[in-house]
Amino acid sequence: MDGVKALFFDVFGTTVDWRTGVAREAKSNLEPLGYSLDWLEFADAWRAEYQPGMEEVRSGKIPFARLDVIHRRMLERIRPKFGLQKVDEAVLQNLNLAWHRLDAWKDVPPGLHRLRQKCLLAPVSNGNISLMVDLARRNDFPWDAILGAELAGDYKPKPRVYLVAVEAFSLEPGNCMMVAAHSSDLQAAANVGLRTAHVARPNEHGPGKGESKPTVPVDVSVRSFEELADVLAK
Amino acid sequence: MDGVKALFFDVFGTTVDWRTGVAREAKSNLEPLGYSLDWLEFADAWRAEYQPGMEEVRSGKIPFARLDVIHRRMLERIRPKFGLQKVDEAVLQNLNLAWHRLDAWKDVPPGLHRLRQKCLLAPVSNGNISLMVDLARRNDFPWDAILGAELAGDYKPKPRVYLVAVEAFSLEPGNCMMVAAHSSDLQAAANVGLRTAHVARPNEHGPGKGESKPTVPVDVSVRSFEELADVLAK
Repeated sequence: MDGVKALFFDVFGTTVDWRTGVAREAKSNLEPLGYSLDWLEFADAWRAEYQPGMEEVRSGKIPFARLDVIHRRMLERIRPKFGLQKVDEAVLQNLNLAWHRLDAWKDVPPGLHRLRQKCLLAPVSNGNISLMVDLARRNDFPWDAILGAELAGDYKPKPRVYLVAVEAFSLEPGNCMMVAAHSSDLQAAANVGLRTAHVARPNEHGPGKGESKPTVPVDVSVRSFEELADVLAK
Repeated sequence: MDGVKALFFDVFGTTVDWRTGVAREAKSNLEPLGYSLDWLEFADAWRAEYQPGMEEVRSGKIPFARLDVIHRRMLERIRPKFGLQKVDEAVLQNLNLAWHRLDAWKDVPPGLHRLRQKCLLAPVSNGNISLMVDLARRNDFPWDAILGAELAGDYKPKPRVYLVAVEAFSLEPGNCMMVAAHSSDLQAAANVGLRTAHVARPNEHGPGKGESKPTVPVDVSVRSFEELADVLAK
């Protein structure tokens, strides 16, 4: 791992558990209003609109908008399915910030603090800057900078997002390692010269529904951020 | 100060002492090669090219380039004056990173750590992201994000630089306070609706050569970051 000077992190699914967090936030916002949904199903449905929502930007169909805006559009698409047409604007705005209030997988904060002794750390997420800042404050993520989609003005897996992050740290792609629980993200990073580390999140989409191993070649494959810190300390 | 949710900081002169730091770095790079300059005069001359260097970008004469690139162009302009035509490329590249190795005014780290209890903190500097990261690591600046010129693709005092920072934190201008030792920076921030705090740095350009008081109306005027923390704690 000589020459790795910066670690770039995917966030949703890799550092934070979006599924149970969004379900919890949906319940706390909607249950007091009398709604009774399958909250995990609601979280899954909202997340299912993620790639289609970003694809409109990536394809050039619509101009770049921050993920908070995309999340709201995604929410609008699923409201009828869950009978939420009459929920008022203030509740919807607060519900949309569910993604700012997610909890880290428990290995992440201690792992990041160890990794920070050796490398620069930044999220390279599709989440916008204020969303990343809120998650960092909540979970004690010691980022050196917030890189990713808002800086690049486009969404992963477009090459530009990774390369703008590399340039922001004044490094070469080979000095940077993308860390993610998703093989597609790592493949896209490797395609533009970054090194890659896969972290298993086998329960991201529910018990047993997540990547326990990468499906593409990677430089490192680990089960936690603490194991990643062990590997990079060698 | 109710409603202030984020503090934005100028960096060169406000959080770090560029003059003695650049002089020290110039001496350590050039004296071993046999050069004997007035190192503070060299630092002043390099800095004197700052506004003309950025004005080429602000005016649209040349495309946006990061401050590291502008600093190198500025260095090229003063080399003949100081007899540095024969210095080789590796030394020049290292010398150009002098701006990454500056020390904070002593009140800044303790002040920032107190301010962080109440507000989001970010540099809104003309320095590029990697430069800000290096200064933060060196001086323990607890930034939530690195905002400023590289994110905006333009240089202060253009309104866009302040407004892109406000937008990155998903706030309104009135929720954000610009902190600087330079009245011109504060005036530009106030013009687009930010609140302003002036910090006296009476020795920025040498003993007695700096702004001991603002020359424009500001919301707060203090002598140190610790005094700013006292004021905002009220």
